[in-house]
Amino acid sequence: MVKLIYSPLDLDIASNNIIETANFLHSKGWTPATSSNFSQRLDNSYCAITVSGKDKGRLTSDDIMVVDFEGKPQHDKKPSAETLLHTSLYALDESIGAVLHTHSLNSNLLSILTENSSWRLEGYELLKAFSGIATHESAINVPIFANTQDIATLADKVIEYLHQNIPCWGYLIRGHGIYTWGRDMASALRHLEAMEYLIQCELEIMRIRGKK
Amino acid sequence: MVKLIYSPLDLDIASNNIIETANFLHSKGWTPATSSNFSQRLDNSYCAITVSGKDKGRLTSDDIMVVDFEGKPQHDKKPSAETLLHTSLYALDESIGAVLHTHSLNSNLLSILTENSSWRLEGYELLKAFSGIATHESAINVPIFANTQDIATLADKVIEYLHQNIPCWGYLIRGHGIYTWGRDMASALRHLEAMEYLIQCELEIMRIRGKK
Amino acid sequence: MVKLIYSPLDLDIASNNIIETANFLHSKGWTPATSSNFSQRLDNSYCAITVSGKDKGRLTSDDIMVVDFEGKPQHDKKPSAETLLHTSLYALDESIGAVLHTHSLNSNLLSILTENSSWRLEGYELLKAFSGIATHESAINVPIFANTQDIATLADKVIEYLHQNIPCWGYLIRGHGIYTWGRDMASALRHLEAMEYLIQCELEIMRIRGKK
Amino acid sequence: MVKLIYSPLDLDIASNNIIETANFLHSKGWTPATSSNFSQRLDNSYCAITVSGKDKGRLTSDDIMVVDFEGKPQHDKKPSAETLLHTSLYALDESIGAVLHTHSLNSNLLSILTENSSWRLEGYELLKAFSGIATHESAINVPIFANTQDIATLADKVIEYLHQNIPCWGYLIRGHGIYTWGRDMASALRHLEAMEYLIQCELEIMRIRGKK
Repeated sequence: MVKLIYSPLDLDIASNNIIETANFLHSKGWTPATSSNFSQRLDNSYCAITVSGKDKGRLTSDDIMVVDFEGKPQHDKKPSAETLLHTSLYALDESIGAVLHTHSLNSNLLSILTENSSWRLEGYELLKAFSGIATHESAINVPIFANTQDIATLADKVIEYLHQNIPCWGYLIRGHGIYTWGRDMASALRHLEAMEYLIQCELEIMRIRGKK
Repeated sequence: MVKLIYSPLDLDIASNNIIETANFLHSKGWTPATSSNFSQRLDNSYCAITVSGKDKGRLTSDDIMVVDFEGKPQHDKKPSAETLLHTSLYALDESIGAVLHTHSLNSNLLSILTENSSWRLEGYELLKAFSGIATHESAINVPIFANTQDIATLADKVIEYLHQNIPCWGYLIRGHGIYTWGRDMASALRHLEAMEYLIQCELEIMRIRGKK
Repeated sequence: MVKLIYSPLDLDIASNNIIETANFLHSKGWTPATSSNFSQRLDNSYCAITVSGKDKGRLTSDDIMVVDFEGKPQHDKKPSAETLLHTSLYALDESIGAVLHTHSLNSNLLSILTENSSWRLEGYELLKAFSGIATHESAINVPIFANTQDIATLADKVIEYLHQNIPCWGYLIRGHGIYTWGRDMASALRHLEAMEYLIQCELEIMRIRGKK
Repeated sequence: MVKLIYSPLDLDIASNNIIETANFLHSKGWTPATSSNFSQRLDNSYCAITVSGKDKGRLTSDDIMVVDFEGKPQHDKKPSAETLLHTSLYALDESIGAVLHTHSLNSNLLSILTENSSWRLEGYELLKAFSGIATHESAINVPIFANTQDIATLADKVIEYLHQNIPCWGYLIRGHGIYTWGRDMASALRHLEAMEYLIQCELEIMRIRGKK
């Protein structure tokens, strides 16, 4: 059951989770050049999200702000340009508690190397890292959306895709990066690490066998 | 000579060894998305093992539990689903003191790239890292088992393989990862590092020369 | 508006920025074997720059010196042999506040793999990391200069290129490395990280698709 | 001028240098599975060297011992099996102050991928990291020796090669690793980093262009 009204402590916890996760993702090299943004749900109407353009290896609590689910800032700070890609997920599905977006080289690369509108991941044990998957004898589709600077339209396309109820733990934006989410920050991070790992597996197979 | 009954200090030492090793393996990126599990023998009947599903870069002593060699938990905690792959090794061979399992990308990748049921490593100086090997003019076989969610059956297949007395320091599970062991945690870690290094060598040769 | 006369505090801040940035770039492996050099503008006539030949992961404030924009040392220390490649940029454009030069393997590699005098980067979201670029539907040219030990002549060629007013955030020296700059140290670092990322993307595409 | 008799302080300094360097090389992943060994000259007759078989990321001063230049231990400790490959260099040339040997994957890989008895490195700016080289318009030969467990014979072959007075800052042992040296620990490390960088460049060019 999602809270109706978040407390100051909820915001502190969300800030700490975001900063700790950002430090880890920065250490992996997945947040180059101040890119990437991260958020955590606070309650039924608000989330905490990184402000625009900070080095993700040096975030402080001042770099986290509150927005409502239409992306409206609750302070005098500038949220990430891609805020709607976070908030529309919270508005859609109350089981989503955290959203992570990085510009990892591998997610970017896979999206460029295929012209298809999704990528299939199949047969890996690590698929079990995705909530609800219990065996490696599974396959998932990772949708790939065209990049655009019109974030509202992209957010609509993502929500439209999710309304089809195809199981989905994240998506790629071509030439841009990856979005993932989970019921809490730990789940979102587990999903992101699994996506990154499986995408790298696919790329390494291409490097050795040639592109399929 | 293996202890008959472990002391509280033995459990503390095992927990510390497991956590320290987990931190190192996590820093290498070999334990993605809360995967991987690690254990250390306590005595003739019990081992300490990681609980199910924790981030391997953030383990605390609360995340280590005791199981007997049939995998039965000695606390109210959930052991890793793959516990039998650890305990059956301790039950088989009293010279095994620690078991390490990771989902490293390279071990996974090699197992996918070959259809053979083993991989031969030959001629490398680093083969001398495996206990009992004294010259690079050696070759070892790393068996590769099919992945399955039926862990009891997989454990039986591994033990059956080991009963053949072919020298063996570890094995791969296809599309899944690697298991290694040693007489103590330091030996198990040395074997794991050597396996990872030699597997990466084989993959890099494929990247440059093409797959053999 | 650039200061006319720098204060001791300005030098302290510049030293700290250079050391902090050097530690980060060293941790990335971009400053091998004591190579690379970094500088920050102090005022209208002077900049702080790394001395010659120190390990870039162990700089102290003693390893930072002041030179004027003709590269003349203001202390009894030996500046980097490539000092003029820094100071001529400050003399050319007062909006340049920091200059970073590394020998990163990828920048070196790309410069060797092409015979062209520039490399085009196009269509990536991360192009927006370069000051003034607002959409991924952009392309930039990174000029590639021949390597030489005659730094004064190379500095002239760079300035001549920049006088053409083609948008430029950095350049490569063939078989050598990369130069980037920005209005302050944070911008220069953001530009360097973006260059490295985009160059690596191009190299990875070559690795999979073959060289174009 | 080399000391005739080393002091306890000299040994402390050598131990600290070796441990600090080992930690850095371990963090790079160049010392897998307790491999690799490092030494520093103490005086005209003795050097400090790592004992056999320790994890190079966890060395303490207890893991450093003194041997004479015929490899004879001066304590009740077991020196590395490859001690003669260090001490014969000190005996040959009094300008050698430190020797570093790692099993880095890239040095191993290059030695396997060629059948030639040396590898030529040419045209790179980073060649200037080798003492005595002042321009990128240089080329050096890195000799490659066959691997053997007969270290005395290998040491003789290395010394025989060096007696030819071909400029040499290090060599490879096929399927094994790399040896480098310098007038002090900082120089030896700079040479090692430069070798690693240049070898990786050559391998990356092979990955993209195919093996020459």
